[in-house]
Amino acid sequence: MTTMTTIDRDLIRAAAQRIAADVRHTPLWRLPGAALGVDVAEVWLKLEQLQVSGSFMARGMFNRLLSNPIPAAGVIVASGGNAGIATAAAARALGVPCEVFVPTVSSPAKQAKLRELGAKVVVTGAVYAEALDACLARQRETGALLTHAYDQPEVVAGAGTLAREIEEQGGEPPDSVLVSVGGGGLIAGVAAWFEDRSRVVALEPELAPTLYRAREAGAPVDVDVSGIAADSLGARRIGAIAWDIAQRHVPDALLLPDAAIGAAQLTLWKEFKLAVEPAAALGLAALQSGAYVPQADEIVALVLCGANLDPGTLS
Amino acid sequence: MTTMTTIDRDLIRAAAQRIAADVRHTPLWRLPGAALGVDVAEVWLKLEQLQVSGSFMARGMFNRLLSNPIPAAGVIVASGGNAGIATAAAARALGVPCEVFVPTVSSPAKQAKLRELGAKVVVTGAVYAEALDACLARQRETGALLTHAYDQPEVVAGAGTLAREIEEQGGEPPDSVLVSVGGGGLIAGVAAWFEDRSRVVALEPELAPTLYRAREAGAPVDVDVSGIAADSLGARRIGAIAWDIAQRHVPDALLLPDAAIGAAQLTLWKEFKLAVEPAAALGLAALQSGAYVPQADEIVALVLCGANLDPGTLS
Repeated sequence: MTTMTTIDRDLIRAAAQRIAADVRHTPLWRLPGAALGVDVAEVWLKLEQLQVSGSFMARGMFNRLLSNPIPAAGVIVASGGNAGIATAAAARALGVPCEVFVPTVSSPAKQAKLRELGAKVVVTGAVYAEALDACLARQRETGALLTHAYDQPEVVAGAGTLAREIEEQGGEPPDSVLVSVGGGGLIAGVAAWFEDRSRVVALEPELAPTLYRAREAGAPVDVDVSGIAADSLGARRIGAIAWDIAQRHVPDALLLPDAAIGAAQLTLWKEFKLAVEPAAALGLAALQSGAYVPQADEIVALVLCGANLDPGTLS
Repeated sequence: MTTMTTIDRDLIRAAAQRIAADVRHTPLWRLPGAALGVDVAEVWLKLEQLQVSGSFMARGMFNRLLSNPIPAAGVIVASGGNAGIATAAAARALGVPCEVFVPTVSSPAKQAKLRELGAKVVVTGAVYAEALDACLARQRETGALLTHAYDQPEVVAGAGTLAREIEEQGGEPPDSVLVSVGGGGLIAGVAAWFEDRSRVVALEPELAPTLYRAREAGAPVDVDVSGIAADSLGARRIGAIAWDIAQRHVPDALLLPDAAIGAAQLTLWKEFKLAVEPAAALGLAALQSGAYVPQADEIVALVLCGANLDPGTLS
């Protein structure tokens, strides 16, 4: 599926220009570490959950759609999660048709959300892999432009625009950036932007350890995924682009238990009134649990990557 | 209850310095008007719902507590809402005792929240006025420092620090600032800061029109309050300080129907993932409903003043 285009800062700058009119500059909230109860100079919260479509994915999907000619059949994607929502939102904004393939296990609420965005939703297959097969077959038939949640260069470059924005808003690269990893599109973009100017730290739920297991095995491998954040970090295997970039620019891949992730998600709501999905809470979970121990004079950036959750779960 | 201290920029600057270590600089999110579907140059969203205690009230309560000697009996307040929560949060942070009087109609969830913050909660009286009487009697007995939701100079000056922050973050005063009014503490602080350098617009629910009715009557009068935002904008009468400042610096007092407020609250959640209470949605409601029609080249600031809501109500 992927070609090994090098993702570099020029590509990310071009992506930022391409998508500028369609995505939001989300706020960077700079807080003293003490405000979060962390012994560190500053914590920068990148409030990317406020992005169009409710997650960082809009950056990559707009970049994918605006970088390619879009056939009459429009765009097509297999995803019941943030990639599907972002693709549907981008297609609606650009006025092109969109088909989204989801497995029968996906929630009726998410299917309704996709339909609200104007997408044609095809519910097929017991699990994601079957929905994907059906999606790919359909794509060959219609010639629609396929979007992928993480393993396409335009999607990774789009995600990289978030890192560019952090540096612009902060006036300098933070000392470290904590990034949640599923398929790895986000961390690939972030690491491609900062390279080694910031310490890019990969965070994964213990129950969805794609990068961690790949490092153990020496190459991407399939893993079992489950748990609190499987909804958005539930890719079965780290993407090829992410693997390549992470090997060069991501020194640490840390695992977090679901309990720490859930506790951090609740802290973000109760203490900061930030409603985020579990995947967006891994950074704070790493600081609160001590999985990542920063230096006292460090500036640590956390990426709050999405808010596609049922707010009732925060009560 | 009030003395007519003049609230001016010097007093607000002093308040900002006094509370700097205890409150948060909340983000100012600058968006093009088109991002909100409004024909205006820019909309600035002051994300004050992310403030300590979940509302702007923390600014005033910290300023009140830090401006006065605190007796051994601590602080005391009658409020089941944001003023009570902010007083309890400030007392906890400063390590002093806090008693909060609430009527029997106040929700068990709010009482629990107050206890979570370490306050002693006294549930008494069928309605707010009875809880207030009991609170005042208790205050005479103990000598505790009384905080009031809006009609104390330190509370108004504290609220004014929010306006100072908007100007600092935006680099200039916005052309207009839309502010929700209950007892008027927030708008008094905002108008005292901007005076006539920004057009300060008062917004009230039709069902809680304290300033609107005061203007009709030529002086503050008691009004019936009910509806979607009564929880936080349900003061029965505009405060004396607010009345004085608003007469000089607030040209417009506009009313909004509950339906428009509820619709704007849902837009803020669904399109922007900002979870706010109804009182914080009046600014967007005024723009969406056409109650306030800005110039096309205007910079309009909206104050998202609080997020003390049950997130389940957003589902």
